[in-house]
Amino acid sequence: MKALYYKDKAQYLEDYPIPVPGPSESLVKILISAICNTDKEVLKGYKPNFSGVLGHEFVGEVVESNKKELIGKRVVGELNEGCGQCIYCRTGREKHCLNRKVIGIAGRDGCFAEYMTIHSDLLHVVPEEIPTEVAIFTEPLAAALEIMEQAHIQPSKNVAVIGDGRLAFMIAQVVSLSGADLTIIGRHEDKLKQFSSFAKTTTEADETYEIVIDATGSPDGILSAQKLVRNKGLIVIKSTYAGKVEIDMSSFVVNEITIKGSRCGPFEPAMQLLQRGLVTLPAIELYELKDYEKALQSKAFKAGFKF
Amino acid sequence: MKALYYKDKAQYLEDYPIPVPGPSESLVKILISAICNTDKEVLKGYKPNFSGVLGHEFVGEVVESNKKELIGKRVVGELNEGCGQCIYCRTGREKHCLNRKVIGIAGRDGCFAEYMTIHSDLLHVVPEEIPTEVAIFTEPLAAALEIMEQAHIQPSKNVAVIGDGRLAFMIAQVVSLSGADLTIIGRHEDKLKQFSSFAKTTTEADETYEIVIDATGSPDGILSAQKLVRNKGLIVIKSTYAGKVEIDMSSFVVNEITIKGSRCGPFEPAMQLLQRGLVTLPAIELYELKDYEKALQSKAFKAGFKF
Repeated sequence: MKALYYKDKAQYLEDYPIPVPGPSESLVKILISAICNTDKEVLKGYKPNFSGVLGHEFVGEVVESNKKELIGKRVVGELNEGCGQCIYCRTGREKHCLNRKVIGIAGRDGCFAEYMTIHSDLLHVVPEEIPTEVAIFTEPLAAALEIMEQAHIQPSKNVAVIGDGRLAFMIAQVVSLSGADLTIIGRHEDKLKQFSSFAKTTTEADETYEIVIDATGSPDGILSAQKLVRNKGLIVIKSTYAGKVEIDMSSFVVNEITIKGSRCGPFEPAMQLLQRGLVTLPAIELYELKDYEKALQSKAFKAGFKF
Repeated sequence: MKALYYKDKAQYLEDYPIPVPGPSESLVKILISAICNTDKEVLKGYKPNFSGVLGHEFVGEVVESNKKELIGKRVVGELNEGCGQCIYCRTGREKHCLNRKVIGIAGRDGCFAEYMTIHSDLLHVVPEEIPTEVAIFTEPLAAALEIMEQAHIQPSKNVAVIGDGRLAFMIAQVVSLSGADLTIIGRHEDKLKQFSSFAKTTTEADETYEIVIDATGSPDGILSAQKLVRNKGLIVIKSTYAGKVEIDMSSFVVNEITIKGSRCGPFEPAMQLLQRGLVTLPAIELYELKDYEKALQSKAFKAGFKF
């Protein structure tokens, strides 16, 4: 099969053997897979120890499985496979297992290929009503929903999302469902227009907010959030980047700010929101795998591969 | 009256007029007052705009008051006087009022003097069973209790306090009442001995903890906490210091850590714990005000003034 293989900060389109599922695994025929910013970070060297097939967002069809009821089903899959033994796996935090394998990121081949194997417990059947090109958003939408899993966003609160990119858009859609008074703070007038049907938008915030969500993907995000959040308020940070930031931690003490880091989230609630049409997303732009260079450079809201 | 007056990074023992209470205020005759680390920070220039009588921890007796029922009563008092008008005062966050006056720190004379005036709503009557030299610990104990007000410390969790000074001791006493498995991580074997009747102690932590409380008072505290906290765990920061710290914020995102800054706390629960004898504290070392230099240099657990 064809696969987009990563090694030493470069990607290669390779003829790769069709993988063979282990005793607890399924073989999945990939229908479409999507490019995430993390894939681009991996290509820049974010995970120096990883080599293998790239990609972790996919919709596929189960071809073989230890769980017979999955065979023939359309599925999406979670990224993180825990060891099952450590303190995190034993306390419901498998996503935080220190020995975790992560599809297309750490220790496991990903989904930029015609076939992929995955631990069967990580698969979720996609309801028939959700088109494949919508189901592909399950994983990033779940990551946005993780904020609601971790923090109580009360409808009476005013909330700001900093950032106007993809991550901010997914988060803003989810937060807007709470009924909270939502403002998007971005730098690009054109991108901010995308949010205007469900949130206030501004390029220059002159207010303060009870809850501020950093979705900038840059070290400036936390510093902006620090200025915008009210005393006793909450900052949720979603931005990951290489490197450190110089910050006045004492002000968080004096102002009694809570900061919450937030990563991967729950798949089933994400699919429910997609199924009900409560989250509206631009169409994914699909390429053939051989055109991976174009796909990786695409400026579309979401780009990916069809197989 | 005699008062310890602060101006331009220096303190002076002055003959100062006895203050006259305003319409919502009380005149308090100070019985004893205590030195807090913040007073020493003020002396170093932490509050460049402040000048006035130093000190904010006191036990006194009400001499005059708009609230007649307070006259003759022994009282302790909160520090922060809100403006009553702003978003924080209107939402139960008077301690965070941006225009707040803070006794002995910002905009109001403090308690290192024979008499002090204070807004009567900030006073709390001390129950007769609590000796004056115990009641003096109400304010710092309340600050420790603020952690319990902000965070749910479950009895089944393991908790680490970093630091072995005064602040750490107050916090550790309070946290130990939760029943949680508590470890104190300090640098000084002799100081750690003080904690050994109610907590584990160590100079070299080789474990990880669900909840880590930084009570070091130094920028290293948050960096140590970052290493010690478990994924999805909680860091409470109590340390204030001048200056910034260089930190990897992304790791908080990836590991989904919550950070909570914590400052002043509730007086009534603190007095209840003192009344019941649930918190055991070393004796305060008392000086006459004229010996303020000795008092400020004291290495005692708590030093202060008697009037």
